[in-house]
Amino acid sequence: MEELKSKPANSPPQSPLSFIEKAATVFGDCPSIIYNNTTYTWSQTYRRCLQLASSLSSSGMISEGDVVSVVAPNIPAMYEVHFAVPFAGAILNNINTRLDARTVSVLLQHCQSKLVLVDYLSRSLVLEAISLFPPDTKRPSLVLITDDANDDGGGCGAVDSDFCCTYESLVKNGDPGFKWIRPKSEWDPIVLNYTSGTTSSPKGVVHCHRGINSIVIDTLIDWSVPKQPVYLWTLPMFHANGWCLPWGIAAVGGVNICLRKFDSVVIYSLIRKYGVTHMCGAPVVLNMLSNSPDNKPLKNPVHILTAGAPPPAAVLFRTESMGFIVSHGYGLTETAGLMVSCAWKPQWNLLPATDRARLKARQGVKVGASTEVDVVDPVTGASVKRDGSSLGEIVLRGGSIMLGYLKDPVGTRKCLSEDGWFYTGDVGVMHPDGYLEIKDRSKDVIISGGENLSSVEVESVLYSNPAIDEAAVVARPDDYWGETPCAFVSLKPGFTTTSNKPTEKEIIEYCRAKLPHYMVPKTVVFQEELPKTSTGKIKKFVLREIAKSMGSSRLSRL
Amino acid sequence: MEELKSKPANSPPQSPLSFIEKAATVFGDCPSIIYNNTTYTWSQTYRRCLQLASSLSSSGMISEGDVVSVVAPNIPAMYEVHFAVPFAGAILNNINTRLDARTVSVLLQHCQSKLVLVDYLSRSLVLEAISLFPPDTKRPSLVLITDDANDDGGGCGAVDSDFCCTYESLVKNGDPGFKWIRPKSEWDPIVLNYTSGTTSSPKGVVHCHRGINSIVIDTLIDWSVPKQPVYLWTLPMFHANGWCLPWGIAAVGGVNICLRKFDSVVIYSLIRKYGVTHMCGAPVVLNMLSNSPDNKPLKNPVHILTAGAPPPAAVLFRTESMGFIVSHGYGLTETAGLMVSCAWKPQWNLLPATDRARLKARQGVKVGASTEVDVVDPVTGASVKRDGSSLGEIVLRGGSIMLGYLKDPVGTRKCLSEDGWFYTGDVGVMHPDGYLEIKDRSKDVIISGGENLSSVEVESVLYSNPAIDEAAVVARPDDYWGETPCAFVSLKPGFTTTSNKPTEKEIIEYCRAKLPHYMVPKTVVFQEELPKTSTGKIKKFVLREIAKSMGSSRLSRL
Repeated sequence: MEELKSKPANSPPQSPLSFIEKAATVFGDCPSIIYNNTTYTWSQTYRRCLQLASSLSSSGMISEGDVVSVVAPNIPAMYEVHFAVPFAGAILNNINTRLDARTVSVLLQHCQSKLVLVDYLSRSLVLEAISLFPPDTKRPSLVLITDDANDDGGGCGAVDSDFCCTYESLVKNGDPGFKWIRPKSEWDPIVLNYTSGTTSSPKGVVHCHRGINSIVIDTLIDWSVPKQPVYLWTLPMFHANGWCLPWGIAAVGGVNICLRKFDSVVIYSLIRKYGVTHMCGAPVVLNMLSNSPDNKPLKNPVHILTAGAPPPAAVLFRTESMGFIVSHGYGLTETAGLMVSCAWKPQWNLLPATDRARLKARQGVKVGASTEVDVVDPVTGASVKRDGSSLGEIVLRGGSIMLGYLKDPVGTRKCLSEDGWFYTGDVGVMHPDGYLEIKDRSKDVIISGGENLSSVEVESVLYSNPAIDEAAVVARPDDYWGETPCAFVSLKPGFTTTSNKPTEKEIIEYCRAKLPHYMVPKTVVFQEELPKTSTGKIKKFVLREIAKSMGSSRLSRL
Repeated sequence: MEELKSKPANSPPQSPLSFIEKAATVFGDCPSIIYNNTTYTWSQTYRRCLQLASSLSSSGMISEGDVVSVVAPNIPAMYEVHFAVPFAGAILNNINTRLDARTVSVLLQHCQSKLVLVDYLSRSLVLEAISLFPPDTKRPSLVLITDDANDDGGGCGAVDSDFCCTYESLVKNGDPGFKWIRPKSEWDPIVLNYTSGTTSSPKGVVHCHRGINSIVIDTLIDWSVPKQPVYLWTLPMFHANGWCLPWGIAAVGGVNICLRKFDSVVIYSLIRKYGVTHMCGAPVVLNMLSNSPDNKPLKNPVHILTAGAPPPAAVLFRTESMGFIVSHGYGLTETAGLMVSCAWKPQWNLLPATDRARLKARQGVKVGASTEVDVVDPVTGASVKRDGSSLGEIVLRGGSIMLGYLKDPVGTRKCLSEDGWFYTGDVGVMHPDGYLEIKDRSKDVIISGGENLSSVEVESVLYSNPAIDEAAVVARPDDYWGETPCAFVSLKPGFTTTSNKPTEKEIIEYCRAKLPHYMVPKTVVFQEELPKTSTGKIKKFVLREIAKSMGSSRLSRL
């Protein structure tokens, strides 16, 4: 057997790029992207990607292996770059449109981006970011996305002097017969995604072709995505490449319904108009959908994949009762997409709704065959007991784990350990049935009187209160206990008048009836709206600062 | 970017083995295998596989990297070995139960099989095969599969002296906590499958873990297999591992309905009893199903994947009108499963039935993203025109192409060319829309008067004749034309009496109305039943011998 090794015929690099080739062959006449009044077919999308790649390749602005950044919301151009930029041999770097200019500047300098494709609404953001470059630094070329397929800006040079041309002129002037540049190795980088770290040490997550291919396949099989789904782009593509579904939807020849911003009324109208079958979003998206004035029961079921935080039971109830089929998973920017999902057991359908919600809030089991998930003791490194209560750090192994952080060998070594695991920094438990449940981000764990306390569990009780719209619990310093739980809540429309509004005391009593004493918030702060990131995650670090500034929750005994 | 390489955390070997781990976690209480009165759950199946692997590992009969052969039909043990044998670090070699003893002997010697698991009905076949070993050759150990989970044969030694123990005793005595042996490299061999070659030079196709994983994933996505399908085992697992669906059904937690032999009445009763959703089979299986006395319309649609030969239009009509949803694909033992499939375009549903059948008979497009398919000129090696008529050899590239033939470096080099393609030996055309269509096996092409003539096309006309049940066309030597088409046909029940039976002349005239003159059979031979292989393929080599023995179809002009 020894002489039988891999050969060129059986070892072409695994890559998600050629999914679009097949989509163009099989579904060439079917819609690929719908955005406002624009509809493309898969033939057109493939052709446009080849044309863009051809222009990028011959532009002189970039070479193979360079980083090309994109600052845009979920518009067709944003979809196309997921194929076109790597087609040109470059590395795609999506940038969150809601970052501030200083952060954008830091990221562009950190990855030495050679070219930035800029949505017209992010124009001033990017120009300001570039103006913050140190004087002697090479600046990237800029291309303007005018968001109008019929406006080519008159070709290169016709846009103002800040931009070298428009996106559409690059597409139009490109060669549709371009032979796209295949990766030499499946370990070659394909994307670079910055996690929401601080600007002082940007964490640039680099994934390779093989890794992205792996998560695409695992997601399609695990979510049982059929051929030609109608996929609504509620999850930003600049957020971890929209969990890699730009490639996934091509793989099954689906329709991508693009939209600039999340608006629950628009969402419902698009669901009805196009018969949306699939969408993704953080639990806050589920909350917005179920609290929308337009939340009539759906005509046809819509599969919604959620991650980023465990969906609170009450939100799950409301969403599912409207006809959404909610799947819950877990991943990080470092895992390219969801590596763990709460695979649903048929017999769970027979359980009462509260049990179903409790089970669905668990993160679940590995999605891919060659993936491994464990929870380990932070001191000994051994697996914790599978008892649903022993806390430990969640570790992962699998094909979609990142290559590492760009220019950060120390950070890379710290989480990609020599023992073959990726250390997530998340704290969780393993249940006796082999299902993982996250208890908290390491940094979100509250340590009160020596007890580790999961902010997520307290939040889930708060969410069950009929008056509470959103809730987040963080640590408040305490001279006696070390820390105590501090709850930030916003109230539902019917509960904001003086007569209806619950008091701090009432909420604390509500929690006391449902939680062990040490987990009950000692402080409740009412806010009109909780601060959120562009992807809908509550900004706990902001709340933590507020709680910290409040000082000790009781006078010191000393 | 250069310092970012693969690391232990992101490069665990790709393998189909751990699919069953997840099935046991998620679908542990759901049925995995149903066979007569036996039903296993996924927990039980996983446990039995670990136990068997444990016994094999500690038996002293085999070491890691050894070949373990299995001679059995589609019974539960046959399913289990697909996990248990590689769990023990050994290479699985399934042997066709319908081979003769001489061939089995040659194969067992060729692969130096250390252990043979023998179904009780193949007992004398294997004992005879072993008796044909040369006197000084080491013989493999034999284990008897008694086909009764409750009969453990009293443990090792209780079966007669030819066998060291029963299969069930191995399972029962094994350790369910066994840590299965993971491949060190994803390129390590996992299976060895002999193609139906001659016994003088057995072609042992070796596949690696990565290759099998690749075809499993591609098949699941391409065939849109949902979670928990009910899969009926009509395709023998000893035939190219049943197109790798033993691993595939585990990946989606489905039910495997096992059965010893193909019988259309039994098939229909199983479909009704268990609500079968998916099955596979050669077109002859479709023919048998549609001609069965029990062929009432199905209550629920059954997805049937067919390959091995293009399904004749008439057979397609009949099968689909009963409620089967037929998908057509193409693969070889060397590709582990179907690497090409006739991906169905939605707009084709609007076409007349004859056009639909013509389109569905094409082999189609690549199933996997990183796969490539081409048709090349045998002399120049260049791609033929995409015109649907230029013949050339079909070449493939992709993750599921074999590592090579065991102990046959010349044969391996011949088809796994340095140019990175696998040369299939099949002759086909590429249509303008990018769909592949096979015209023939190289050796089945008939060359008449210098024209290459596809036997498949002639057969497809014969199948459209209402009197004809099965048809095969081969070359008959001809002193003037070189070769002429010779048709072998069997007739449907209603057409076998003297008054009903069509004459040779009538059949030739029927063909003349539908085919160019040079393609019309010059000879028609009526047979009660055409000779078939155990997988239902018509044995053309037998017919070719008969046609050859008939001599020239006309007197030589000389």
